[in-house]
Amino acid sequence: MIYRFTNDYSEGAHINILNALLKTNLNQEIGYGNDSFCEEAKKLIKEKIKNENADIHFVSGGTQANLIIISSVLRPHEAIIAASTGHINVHETGAIESTGHKICTVETKDGKLTVKDIQSVLEIHEDEHMVKPKMVFISNSTELGTIYKKEELKAISKFCKENNLYLHLDGARLGSALMSRDNDLTLDELSSLVDIFYIGGTKNGALLGEAIVINNDKLKEDFRYHIKQKGAMLAKGRLLGIQFTELFKNNLYFDLANHANKMAYKLSDSLKDLGYEFLTEPTSNQIFPIMTNEIIEKLENRYGFNIERKIDDNKKAIRLVTSWATEEKSVDEFINYMKELGRVKAC
Amino acid sequence: MIYRFTNDYSEGAHINILNALLKTNLNQEIGYGNDSFCEEAKKLIKEKIKNENADIHFVSGGTQANLIIISSVLRPHEAIIAASTGHINVHETGAIESTGHKICTVETKDGKLTVKDIQSVLEIHEDEHMVKPKMVFISNSTELGTIYKKEELKAISKFCKENNLYLHLDGARLGSALMSRDNDLTLDELSSLVDIFYIGGTKNGALLGEAIVINNDKLKEDFRYHIKQKGAMLAKGRLLGIQFTELFKNNLYFDLANHANKMAYKLSDSLKDLGYEFLTEPTSNQIFPIMTNEIIEKLENRYGFNIERKIDDNKKAIRLVTSWATEEKSVDEFINYMKELGRVKAC
Amino acid sequence: MIYRFTNDYSEGAHINILNALLKTNLNQEIGYGNDSFCEEAKKLIKEKIKNENADIHFVSGGTQANLIIISSVLRPHEAIIAASTGHINVHETGAIESTGHKICTVETKDGKLTVKDIQSVLEIHEDEHMVKPKMVFISNSTELGTIYKKEELKAISKFCKENNLYLHLDGARLGSALMSRDNDLTLDELSSLVDIFYIGGTKNGALLGEAIVINNDKLKEDFRYHIKQKGAMLAKGRLLGIQFTELFKNNLYFDLANHANKMAYKLSDSLKDLGYEFLTEPTSNQIFPIMTNEIIEKLENRYGFNIERKIDDNKKAIRLVTSWATEEKSVDEFINYMKELGRVKAC
Amino acid sequence: MIYRFTNDYSEGAHINILNALLKTNLNQEIGYGNDSFCEEAKKLIKEKIKNENADIHFVSGGTQANLIIISSVLRPHEAIIAASTGHINVHETGAIESTGHKICTVETKDGKLTVKDIQSVLEIHEDEHMVKPKMVFISNSTELGTIYKKEELKAISKFCKENNLYLHLDGARLGSALMSRDNDLTLDELSSLVDIFYIGGTKNGALLGEAIVINNDKLKEDFRYHIKQKGAMLAKGRLLGIQFTELFKNNLYFDLANHANKMAYKLSDSLKDLGYEFLTEPTSNQIFPIMTNEIIEKLENRYGFNIERKIDDNKKAIRLVTSWATEEKSVDEFINYMKELGRVKAC
Repeated sequence: MIYRFTNDYSEGAHINILNALLKTNLNQEIGYGNDSFCEEAKKLIKEKIKNENADIHFVSGGTQANLIIISSVLRPHEAIIAASTGHINVHETGAIESTGHKICTVETKDGKLTVKDIQSVLEIHEDEHMVKPKMVFISNSTELGTIYKKEELKAISKFCKENNLYLHLDGARLGSALMSRDNDLTLDELSSLVDIFYIGGTKNGALLGEAIVINNDKLKEDFRYHIKQKGAMLAKGRLLGIQFTELFKNNLYFDLANHANKMAYKLSDSLKDLGYEFLTEPTSNQIFPIMTNEIIEKLENRYGFNIERKIDDNKKAIRLVTSWATEEKSVDEFINYMKELGRVKAC
Repeated sequence: MIYRFTNDYSEGAHINILNALLKTNLNQEIGYGNDSFCEEAKKLIKEKIKNENADIHFVSGGTQANLIIISSVLRPHEAIIAASTGHINVHETGAIESTGHKICTVETKDGKLTVKDIQSVLEIHEDEHMVKPKMVFISNSTELGTIYKKEELKAISKFCKENNLYLHLDGARLGSALMSRDNDLTLDELSSLVDIFYIGGTKNGALLGEAIVINNDKLKEDFRYHIKQKGAMLAKGRLLGIQFTELFKNNLYFDLANHANKMAYKLSDSLKDLGYEFLTEPTSNQIFPIMTNEIIEKLENRYGFNIERKIDDNKKAIRLVTSWATEEKSVDEFINYMKELGRVKAC
Repeated sequence: MIYRFTNDYSEGAHINILNALLKTNLNQEIGYGNDSFCEEAKKLIKEKIKNENADIHFVSGGTQANLIIISSVLRPHEAIIAASTGHINVHETGAIESTGHKICTVETKDGKLTVKDIQSVLEIHEDEHMVKPKMVFISNSTELGTIYKKEELKAISKFCKENNLYLHLDGARLGSALMSRDNDLTLDELSSLVDIFYIGGTKNGALLGEAIVINNDKLKEDFRYHIKQKGAMLAKGRLLGIQFTELFKNNLYFDLANHANKMAYKLSDSLKDLGYEFLTEPTSNQIFPIMTNEIIEKLENRYGFNIERKIDDNKKAIRLVTSWATEEKSVDEFINYMKELGRVKAC
Repeated sequence: MIYRFTNDYSEGAHINILNALLKTNLNQEIGYGNDSFCEEAKKLIKEKIKNENADIHFVSGGTQANLIIISSVLRPHEAIIAASTGHINVHETGAIESTGHKICTVETKDGKLTVKDIQSVLEIHEDEHMVKPKMVFISNSTELGTIYKKEELKAISKFCKENNLYLHLDGARLGSALMSRDNDLTLDELSSLVDIFYIGGTKNGALLGEAIVINNDKLKEDFRYHIKQKGAMLAKGRLLGIQFTELFKNNLYFDLANHANKMAYKLSDSLKDLGYEFLTEPTSNQIFPIMTNEIIEKLENRYGFNIERKIDDNKKAIRLVTSWATEEKSVDEFINYMKELGRVKAC
């Protein structure tokens, strides 16, 4: 295989992170996330989100962040509303149900929930014979690479407040969403519109790590107990603090996401020029070109990528992912190879 | 504060590990623990335990390892037997109960379970109005720093087999146990006597990481599903593979534990010379000298350590922990300071 | 209100049951389902299902039966496949998820699962990032009043065996299904095709009670522990034993269901004569005529019933339920009233 | 066997209850506890506890009541404090842990918790590495037949309020406690001192049924969802409403308990006259005389009872239970037989 466009976690970490680990290695620090690096990282993030009162906690991964957040917030009979493509519904091995909660799903065309979608769930849940929807789950960017515009997120936020629903945003790929050429939200605006969310580090240059941000005071109480109970409180919490300090001092987090997006746009613009259509409009670091089985077979000999979905007997949507570590020359080579394979013929 | 003897996770990682992370950083690898480094680490560990058929999985921490193991193995009505001092019973914020299982506890004097202890639990659990004990939890070294001798572990193992109980060993500090001057077990002997156990990395030189070893075929099925469901499957599993490769190629894991023990013995031997008694006989990297409140107060101004237990109105047992990173000069300084404070007077 | 066709649990119990309770009231019996009445009821049911080796347990209600069965059988990462209309998915307040398990749902037109439906779920669940489907849930009759024909059930049973899936049948309204004029299955045939199922008493003449039948040996172990743990083991288990003895000595269970069906047919045949269409073809004691909002409003002043579903802005499907206790004269009155309201006009 | 003193649920129900079931049998009623009988029963109980604002819910049994109450009230990291002999800790097959919560236990001599016991648990639970005790569980009468005096309950209640702990009282045998010759609490006084409790019907004349009373407003929200989710919402909730109406109109509930206690006193007074000692001082309908193995063996040929505990190699404490249904002549016969066996000899 020449190169993997399989995901955004095929490499290690940005070099600044490794250097910081080396430099601080023998400092003696308090365990379990109470170290000076975590304090520094929290301070930096609070500045970026412009909320001094937020509570911030670091955990290892996205599924972990989601299951801790949801099980900490919901009472046993309460449920979460999500797009049927939502990560919690598909690719977390029932982690949310494992903590006792149902996910009420809505079919969407692009992985994005709308107010109407949420309302449709509320309408059919009327009494104690059914679960009580209490939280809304969205991801930005979504599992289909799409992003929420400011007006869309505002509308959801308003609806949730009016209906006593908590709003949780999965930001596993938040950097890429915010650096999208189509984005009109800043990190602090986004933060102000949700009760709780997490900023993904693993898929944007860290070895591991997600920063959970709790804006709603009601959701803050005893949160560390839940981190510990779910096995997510690292003895050497410094590992997470050091990484988020590196990512959020200066602008590294956004610069890395910007690079990932640029590589994705190069890929998607070229594929469009070659006549390819996409499952969803490319806008972040995950793109979903639709290709014939024949082309896909050829590509598989040279590149790593996932099949997203069968379109018809002849065609599939594949997923190409770029990252902070994607080399421009590999992107160029891929494009050249696609050119060799020729333009998509009109059917 | 001059120095922390608070725990064995105050520093980062052994330098070999950081160097290996740097060296392999931009290699593209498959995610989720299917990378080449994890494969290499598994191979090395299988050699050390002399069991080619073992299944090995890497996770981030001890609580996580315990909750995944126990919830994967037990059916809902089944319970685990542990010493009341067992980590799962005290310091995991109810992680095991959170997965639905009761812990049946036995009071012990030194943190070690005996066949008689286990039998006493079985005797009172006779029908479906009570939980069904199905697994035994031991830790080596224990939470009180003590270790299991070969004959003791053999007896427990035999009893468990005869009584259809699974035996799980928490090896958060397994290195220190095996390198104890009082130990008569090899890693492979120990492994052959338990159904499942984990080898602790976090407390012996890794940034994070525990290697779960499954010897009993019945416990192997679908284990990766449980890792994922509990939020423990790192996207960059390479982080764990690289570390365990470093720890188990050559003898690094054991050398680091050996250093920790030596530092502990230096402390405990000196304290004995000064007349101090201990809560349990020092044998691994956690020692529990008993000191007057007056001495403890003085020590707290210079050193980091935990209070383990009140002995009487005048005295407490404290916990001093050494590690791979403990500097001999800090140990010497501590001893000198203790000498300054003077010999324990006969009461 | 003149009369309720709201459900099949608006009245108490068949008089034979009350008489038996009175007659045996002061006999001293062992508690928790080990009494002589439960033994007698088990014997009677084993004869009817022609399986001496079945294990039989009595519990209070359908949600309870389903949650005990499913949580007893599945490991934490395993999921159950059901029609989206399945009782466990809609009207059990997340009881199954509360025990930790995801329900993988399939849209159906009539509440019945097909082999193709089940296969479609298996096809997308390929690895440990998703739950592992391990059990199939069907109900007979279904939540939409439809029933499984022998060939359909055989096909599902065969497919489940071939794919290592357990098959669980919710028989809350099993009597009505088996006494349907369209049914070609006997109770013993049905029993032989499923791993586990329950025979509903609550909706067919009992005060409360469902008989869980376990045919598959693998699912029998320690089942009573699960009944107790979920709070379902009645101290006076005799209450359930006495009722099922009454229902299954002679043919009372089937006679009662037969009466319910006859009353339903009288309703559905008359409504068809008046030109009404149905959401699903009437065949058991739940029928779903489609009526204009205007007619429904009038009916609501005289009769109890539920709205099942909106058909369009003008029309809804309502649910009429008959039971062992439905009086023929109330059915006649309802039909007469419908005749007064006139024939459905051609649109 | 001549007669069972095994428990207080060997017979059916008080005849008033059966008669009421017969009389109301064909009334059509709304399902799921919203029927007119449940309303009537709630009204009667509110009068007895002198709290119009209480929420009252009926469920089938004690384990069910406890698991619904505790899992409804506690967040995942919160724990309940109980005597080690507490029913939830011993004889509910891990039902509480099954809902995710640890039980923090204290050894007691008589099954009663004291403020000091509760405080001892709070003192060792200091941070997020341990569960957070949030509720106190007591039973009245206790599992050892003892009862709480007014001052004792007041002290616990006060301590709980001061320490933000909820107080839950298991009243499986509340009737017997309140009718004890040593009791100085009225039902309404007791009710005013606890946040939540349940009034046991199963062990005091009902076929099945416990009435959960919620005094604390914070614990009321959405309680019916929890009843449903745990499989405890009977379709024919009337069965519970009718029974509690019978028990609480007039004074039946207390009269039945009074009879049970009188029978117990007759037994215990006679046994004392014969020189027998008791595990705990007899005061309610469970008494625990200590007998030699030889005597116990003889008794077992004629009477049903349980062994509570081994006292020494020669002696055991047995449990004799009386109830509303205990016949005085059977008590007399038992006493006569004991007299035949002779006085306890001085050792």
